Amino acid sequence: MKPSPFAPTSFAYLPPIGGVRFATAEAGIKYKNRTDLLLAVFDEGTVAAGVLTQSKTCSAPVLHCRANLASPGGLARALVVNSGNANAFTGKRGQDCVAITVEAARAATGASAHGVYVASTGVIGEPLDPAKFTGLLPGLAKSAAPNRFEAAARAIMTTDTYPKLATRTAEIGGVPVRVSGFCKGAGMIAPDMATMLCFMFTDAAIAQPVLQQLLTQHAQTTFNCMTIDGDTSTSDTCLLFATGAAEARGQAPVTKLDDPALASFSTELHEVMRDLAIQVAKDGEGLSKFVTFNVTGAESFQAARKIALSCANSPILKAAIAGEDPNWGRVVMAVGKSGEAADRDKLSIAFGPHQVAQHGERAASYVEATAADYMKGREIVIGIDVGVGKGSATVWTCDLTHDYISINADYRS
Amino acid sequence: MKPSPFAPTSFAYLPPIGGVRFATAEAGIKYKNRTDLLLAVFDEGTVAAGVLTQSKTCSAPVLHCRANLASPGGLARALVVNSGNANAFTGKRGQDCVAITVEAARAATGASAHGVYVASTGVIGEPLDPAKFTGLLPGLAKSAAPNRFEAAARAIMTTDTYPKLATRTAEIGGVPVRVSGFCKGAGMIAPDMATMLCFMFTDAAIAQPVLQQLLTQHAQTTFNCMTIDGDTSTSDTCLLFATGAAEARGQAPVTKLDDPALASFSTELHEVMRDLAIQVAKDGEGLSKFVTFNVTGAESFQAARKIALSCANSPILKAAIAGEDPNWGRVVMAVGKSGEAADRDKLSIAFGPHQVAQHGERAASYVEATAADYMKGREIVIGIDVGVGKGSATVWTCDLTHDYISINADYRS
Repeated sequence: MKPSPFAPTSFAYLPPIGGVRFATAEAGIKYKNRTDLLLAVFDEGTVAAGVLTQSKTCSAPVLHCRANLASPGGLARALVVNSGNANAFTGKRGQDCVAITVEAARAATGASAHGVYVASTGVIGEPLDPAKFTGLLPGLAKSAAPNRFEAAARAIMTTDTYPKLATRTAEIGGVPVRVSGFCKGAGMIAPDMATMLCFMFTDAAIAQPVLQQLLTQHAQTTFNCMTIDGDTSTSDTCLLFATGAAEARGQAPVTKLDDPALASFSTELHEVMRDLAIQVAKDGEGLSKFVTFNVTGAESFQAARKIALSCANSPILKAAIAGEDPNWGRVVMAVGKSGEAADRDKLSIAFGPHQVAQHGERAASYVEATAADYMKGREIVIGIDVGVGKGSATVWTCDLTHDYISINADYRS
Repeated sequence: MKPSPFAPTSFAYLPPIGGVRFATAEAGIKYKNRTDLLLAVFDEGTVAAGVLTQSKTCSAPVLHCRANLASPGGLARALVVNSGNANAFTGKRGQDCVAITVEAARAATGASAHGVYVASTGVIGEPLDPAKFTGLLPGLAKSAAPNRFEAAARAIMTTDTYPKLATRTAEIGGVPVRVSGFCKGAGMIAPDMATMLCFMFTDAAIAQPVLQQLLTQHAQTTFNCMTIDGDTSTSDTCLLFATGAAEARGQAPVTKLDDPALASFSTELHEVMRDLAIQVAKDGEGLSKFVTFNVTGAESFQAARKIALSCANSPILKAAIAGEDPNWGRVVMAVGKSGEAADRDKLSIAFGPHQVAQHGERAASYVEATAADYMKGREIVIGIDVGVGKGSATVWTCDLTHDYISINADYRS
């Protein structure tokens, strides 16, 4: 597969996080000559928060994570992820596979049953045989080491052309803490309360309910503001693990969402999530351009987000962008079909710094050649003011290209 | 442009309808060497019904038709349609253009201002100069003739590769009446209470409110059950004109929706609309396959329709169909993302006669090679039972191909 034009040539170093260790293996579930199995092991006392797909046909691992998150305490000791098979729509066998995986991970790591999180990504509907990888878990548990973020990120990739990693430092009461994570895309991406697979880790000591609220809140403006193709997966899983290792360095545990000491952590967690969401959009299947829609003047954030997603999921607009055509008429269409309030006669649209539409018609200053020239760039920013209120939202996506069709006409067969 | 594989080699003859005449011209609005202007003239006493786009950024002609339909009596004497320019998002100038067009058509045909309907299709945001075509209207009014359905259908095409025509006969109280129509697609098609441009004509004598109710009702199961790309246009206009000419042949005018004499007409009108909707799907931009989704077992018709549209608008599923990949896992995904109730463990999916999924997992009888063979056909029928109720719906669409991208990356520039 052709690498995304945004594929980085090197990756930021993610330093170890106290209480988190990783190991990966080539289990041969579907792919050959690459890793496809990840085990993350956490120290005792680690808590987990998560947001999961709202799909009505969600996978067996998603159901298991949902049950775990609802269990008292939200404690976590292990995470098992495989790529190459989503274990979705696999019926009773799928649930059995999760149970066998959990039992094997439990035995290998000493976790309780509710302490093992599981995620799978890949083909839907194909039974996943746990015998292919559960035998590897004891060895992985022994060899797990803190310094392996990039290897972990690579093991969970499917059609991604590069691993996606992000890290930030924050402080809680003057004590530095770190939050780091990785995730995968790259098609069937339209988050609905969660997105794709994303795993984040911190050494901060934060009570589980607070962690959960932060994650849910930031998902709204990060992963839920990103789309590749409008297709929400059966397997979307976003988990955040907090080991609390920073407590030993003097960090007083945070137990309330309104604790002012949480501000820096909240900001940096948001940054990690935003960074990862943008990386996913920049590796959208077959993309040639990264596209940002900034919607302002809507009735609310939710309305602005819906308008921006209506644009970001419009095949005809995304194909025009791929063709470097400044076809802002298709932006008008996509705003109109969103169903959200917009004042046609106040609507204004800008392509980068170039105002193309204003007061409900083509801008007087519009020069087609200038806009066409702007469209040749690799990163396109489209600003839309719908003229009815103060709500705003930013949504990230990519264009719709021949390569998207090629990838998805051939992916399985 | 490559013709659709479903393009007919010849067209059914549509006999004249009493009280309806057509004329077309080459106005050179955008296209060269083809007709792009249609004038239809109706006898006095003709009534009109219509369904129009729900887009929040609808075109000036749509606003005009909406006002006409709300005017007392709903009388119609003329219809002016141009292709090549949608006169959408053209501000005050767009409204002026409609006013000038209406005035010119009024003068040419003797209609009242509310008796002139206008529709435009083509590029959005480009000002439409009425001087390009209003001068042609008096000549067209003089030369208009009943026997020109195919020419009329050709004049309104944009990226369509063939004109779309349909006709049926019905009887009202034993008197034969006819209903005929034509429409255009072929991209930016996802009807929302109306669809693309569609004009239908009948000699039946039916009161305007009854005609309107029939049209609105049948749009739900025909045009609103068809999608090319999920993109709802700014210009969707579907109009039905009833001249009442059959009254002279003894047809007693129908004034009530529950009049049993209306049954045959209602059935045949539905057939014409269904036929046209399918023709639009069969000429979807760049298609290689015509795809029907039959959803059963949903909570209601609306729920079934939403599930079927979620499938029919899924880029990743439509690309798989283009690739002749029986990737039913993507059907599972699209059902799940619809948000409508579905019982994952009762969900069953069939590709044509081949059951591929049952009881929430791959069907025991599933043979990949058989399903793959079925996908090589030109017409694909996907049956989905979601196992929760008795609602059902059928939605027509096409696959998503390289040619769709090519057409829409190049359409304007």
